[in-house]
This record gives sequence, structure tokens and C-alpha cells, in this order.
Amino acid sequence: MNIQAPSIDLFHEMRVELALVEQRVLEASAIDLPVVSTMVSDIVSNTGKRLRPVILLLSARAFEPNLEAAITASAGIELLHTASLVHDDSIDRADVRRGQPTLNTQLSSSAVILIGDYLFAKSAMLAAATNSTRVVSIFAATLGELCDGQLREMMHARQLDQDRADYDKRIWGKTASLFAGSAEMGAVIGNAPESLITELRSFGGDLGMAFQIIDDVLDLREGTQTLGKPSANDLRQGIVTLPTMYFAESLPVGSPNRDALLGIVEGDITDEDTIQDIVLQIRASGVIDRAEADARLFADSARSRLRMVEDSETRRLLEATLDLTLERIS
Amino acid sequence: MNIQAPSIDLFHEMRVELALVEQRVLEASAIDLPVVSTMVSDIVSNTGKRLRPVILLLSARAFEPNLEAAITASAGIELLHTASLVHDDSIDRADVRRGQPTLNTQLSSSAVILIGDYLFAKSAMLAAATNSTRVVSIFAATLGELCDGQLREMMHARQLDQDRADYDKRIWGKTASLFAGSAEMGAVIGNAPESLITELRSFGGDLGMAFQIIDDVLDLREGTQTLGKPSANDLRQGIVTLPTMYFAESLPVGSPNRDALLGIVEGDITDEDTIQDIVLQIRASGVIDRAEADARLFADSARSRLRMVEDSETRRLLEATLDLTLERIS
Repeated sequence: MNIQAPSIDLFHEMRVELALVEQRVLEASAIDLPVVSTMVSDIVSNTGKRLRPVILLLSARAFEPNLEAAITASAGIELLHTASLVHDDSIDRADVRRGQPTLNTQLSSSAVILIGDYLFAKSAMLAAATNSTRVVSIFAATLGELCDGQLREMMHARQLDQDRADYDKRIWGKTASLFAGSAEMGAVIGNAPESLITELRSFGGDLGMAFQIIDDVLDLREGTQTLGKPSANDLRQGIVTLPTMYFAESLPVGSPNRDALLGIVEGDITDEDTIQDIVLQIRASGVIDRAEADARLFADSARSRLRMVEDSETRRLLEATLDLTLERIS
Repeated sequence: MNIQAPSIDLFHEMRVELALVEQRVLEASAIDLPVVSTMVSDIVSNTGKRLRPVILLLSARAFEPNLEAAITASAGIELLHTASLVHDDSIDRADVRRGQPTLNTQLSSSAVILIGDYLFAKSAMLAAATNSTRVVSIFAATLGELCDGQLREMMHARQLDQDRADYDKRIWGKTASLFAGSAEMGAVIGNAPESLITELRSFGGDLGMAFQIIDDVLDLREGTQTLGKPSANDLRQGIVTLPTMYFAESLPVGSPNRDALLGIVEGDITDEDTIQDIVLQIRASGVIDRAEADARLFADSARSRLRMVEDSETRRLLEATLDLTLERIS
């Protein structure tokens, strides 16, 4: 399957809109405090692939394009995502993300909290600037789902026995809600019919679920070099992801492997040899493939939601965002 | 001056609306996660005098009352205030507020960040539920000002030499912006004429400036018992408030008192005897009276903004909120 091509296409075709989003993000987050100003512009520049803006822009473009509102909302959703990463890094005290040092390595935790709050504020101002109460409602509900997911992750941390429903709720809130909200906002801005708004929201949600499962798979499958952050980071923090959950289910109670896994998740075992040994066993057990298959199921569901999108060019580009998400597991 | 009576009046006269705000706050912040749920309802119940909702409700009542929207916005502003207190406690690692242990004494800092974020999300959802893009814009702008004020406080911490303009900007953002936003939202919900919206916003802002100066005065003037938190808490954290700024200006460079004050603010001197000695000198120096006079100036300005409010009953109650604010310094 050739999946490199569409992703390159996607960002080429969206480059004008993405440059406008970039500019809006920088303008909106500008602050007249010398030191903070540099930090904030570094944070908002050093982000990923702007997948959420791409989904929002395309969901709007499928119907009546209203570029100004779509750019504003996209900048809002990107800043919301950035704000949540800032707080998230503070929560897991991550020192490296995307191969770059996080704010934690440079700043007090107070500053990290405040800068995250500041970015939340700016994202809310952008949502308000769309002048659409419906967009603002989706924005606020998305922020609520995001926090719910993060609280669930915290409440379930350091517990080995969890069920799939818990995991799905957590990753919905933490990740998929933002993709679902982006697609929904875009469709609302584009004045799509209600049935299409629902379908596009589901497209975003399914894509987001696939995205997070793949993230969780990569954390266990790849080495530190590839990830740009320590391998098996989730496991070290006691976050039980889908492959770990499947692996735990396969181990008899009282077996040495289960005891070792339990010790790592509960934080009692921290020595590198035991962690590396368990990671190797997870990789050899087949649970990685099983979780990848789950991600593909969500991706298939996402793809099926696009049938109702009539504009073939937009549909092709939305399919390309999905290919780009799946690309990481191939 | 008899200032007890109007304040008691105020809460009696507003009791029906305040009970509805209380209920809306509790409903909006409900969460179906066992442990977090109890914490959140404890936080939102254990708050102060609901001054911001009172100002919002009265500012709406002065014109066309729209009780439903005013209650919703009041609950939103109260949750925004609560969220900022939660993060603020985390930032200054305060263990006691309003005589009660803060979340810091019970929880990890991660949980405190997330619970604050969750309350921010819920407050934004309430603002959105007013279905007024203008109310949402004021809400988002207020959140931005709040963060700006807190970032300024952080950037200026541990520096003795500051000017009044810095102080005013900080306390505007940190405190007055919420009162200004409450009054403005209320007036907008009440469909007040533009000139009145501006006047009421200024009323709220001036009242808020007086409120924060009084808070800063009390921190130095009162003992731990009265405050419900350690006395001279700001000074211990290197936050230079108005009385301390005036006191510093009065001390010759190189004098032993200035060196001691500098050491405390910069965090090099932490022994209780030196701190107590400087606090006693601040109290004896007359700077407390000078700062109190500044607070009264803001209160006078706030009072003058009310001349344009035609409904005499509402004006009387808005004046009572001002009396209640000043009550604390008498």
C-alpha cells in the first residue's frame, strides 16, 4: 500500500490555508511580556502536523466555504491542543516531546500552569471570534471532554486491571474529542446539513480513536530514537494502554511475568532490565498486531463516514488525512 | 459610617437568585468519577461571598431582567473564579485558603492542574450556554486578562523595585478583570444601552481594584487567625504589594531595613524574626493608611459610575456591594 504520496499531497494542497492558520495562531498568542513571549511563540511554533486544523478546514470546505471563520476556529483548536499538551507535559513531567525539550526542563511548574492557562484563554478568544454560538458550544464541550479524558487517565493510572470500555472513554476524551470537535466545527462553519455534521463529527472521532491507539502502539513498539521521547513512557508512568491491557489479560494470575508487569505499572519496579524485558515480551506476544487491527477498524469506520461527502476533491483530501494517520503504523 | 447593615441586606435581598446560581454551579460541575466528584463539589461549595455573581445579577437587573441567562452567566463567572483559585493555590503552593485546607494538602499537583482545567471547561460551557456571542467574548477576554495578570505577578515576583503601573496592571488582570467582566456581562444580558454597559464595566473594574488593594493591605495588617491563612503570605512569596512598594520607596538604599526587606522579597531571608520585624515596621510606617486611601479612591470612582443607573433599588444594592468590599478595611 502506497501511503506516503497522499500525505505529501495533503500538505501541499492545504499549504495556503495552513499558512493562514499558522499566522493566526502566532498573532493570537502574542503577549507583551518579554521572557514569556519568546517561550509562547516557541511552543506554538514547535508543534506537529496541524492535523486538527486540516480536518476542520476540509470539513468546512466540503460545503459553503467560509475561510475567515474556518481559519479562526482552526487556530482556536490548534491552540487548545497546544494548551493541553503544555499541561499534559507538566502532569507527566515529560522532559522531551517531539524530540524537543519541554517547558518542564526550562521552567517552574507554576509557569507551565500559567502558560497553559494563557493558551486556553487565547483559544477560547479565537472560538468566540468566530461569532457562532454553536462553534463556541462545540469548543467548550470539547474542552470539557478533554479534561474528562485526562482526569480518567489520572484516576486509572497505576492500576493494571482495566477494561476496554474505560480505555475507550479515556482516549475518546484525551484525543478523539478534539478531532471530532474539529470536524464538527468545520461542518457547522460550512453550513453543512445536520446529517453531514453528525457524519463528519463521527469521522473525526473515529480517526482520533485510531490516532491514539497508534500512538499507544508506537510507545511500546518503537525505540527512543524513533519516538523522540523515552520508549515505553506510558508503561513507566503506570498508564495501561491497549496493548498492555491485552498482554495483561493473557498472563495467568501469579505468573512471574504478570507480577513483573504489575510491579512496573504500580511503580514498585523501576529497574531498566525488568522494564526492557517486559517490553520485549509485549512485542513478541502478538498484542501489538491486535491493537493495530483495532486502530484499522476505527480507520475503516472513519472512511465509511465519508461516503456522504459529495465533493470528491474534499473527500479525497479527508481520506488522505486518514492515510496519514495510518501511515505511522506501516 | 454604618456599613454592616447594607451588606446583610444585600445577601438577604439576593438570596433567591444566589440559590439558583449555587444550584447551577453544582449541576454544571458534577462529574461521574467517584473520588474527583467529591473533591469538585467540595471546592465549588467552599467558596466566598459570591460577589461576582451578585454584581452580574444586579447589572442585568438594572435593565431588562433575563434571569435565566443571568443565572447561567453568573454560575460561569463563579466557576471561572474557582478554577483560577485552584490553579493559583497550586502555583503558590498555598496549604490553607479561607481557613480550609486547599487541594494542595490533599492531592498531587497533577490532579490540581486537571481539576482546575476541568472547572475552566465547565465555566466556558456555561458562558456558551447563554447563547450570546457577546457574553462569550467577554468571558474569553476576561480569562485572557486573568492569565495576563497572573503571568505578570509571576514575572515580577522576587523583585523589590517595581512601579505603581506594574502593580495596577497585575491586580487589574488578577482580580479587577473578573469584576469588570461580571458587570459587563450582566449589563449585556440586561440589554443595557452601550453607555451604561461601559459605565457598569468600569464600576466592576474599580470595585475590583479596591477589592485587591484591600486584600493586599489585610495580608500585612492582620494576623494569621483573622486571615485564615498565614499572615504576610505575599511578602513570604516575594510578591510586592502596594503597601510594601510604598514602604520600600521610603527606605534609603543600603539601609539595614531595606536590605532585610530585599532579602525577604528575594527569598534569601526566611527567618521568622526578621519577617515579623519588617511586618511590624510596615504597620508602623503609615503605608497601610496610604494604601487604604488608594482603595477608597477606587471605591469612590466606582460609586460615581452608578449615577447613570436609573433604577434606584438596583443602584442601592450595587452600592451595598461596594460597602461590603470596603467593610473589610474598617
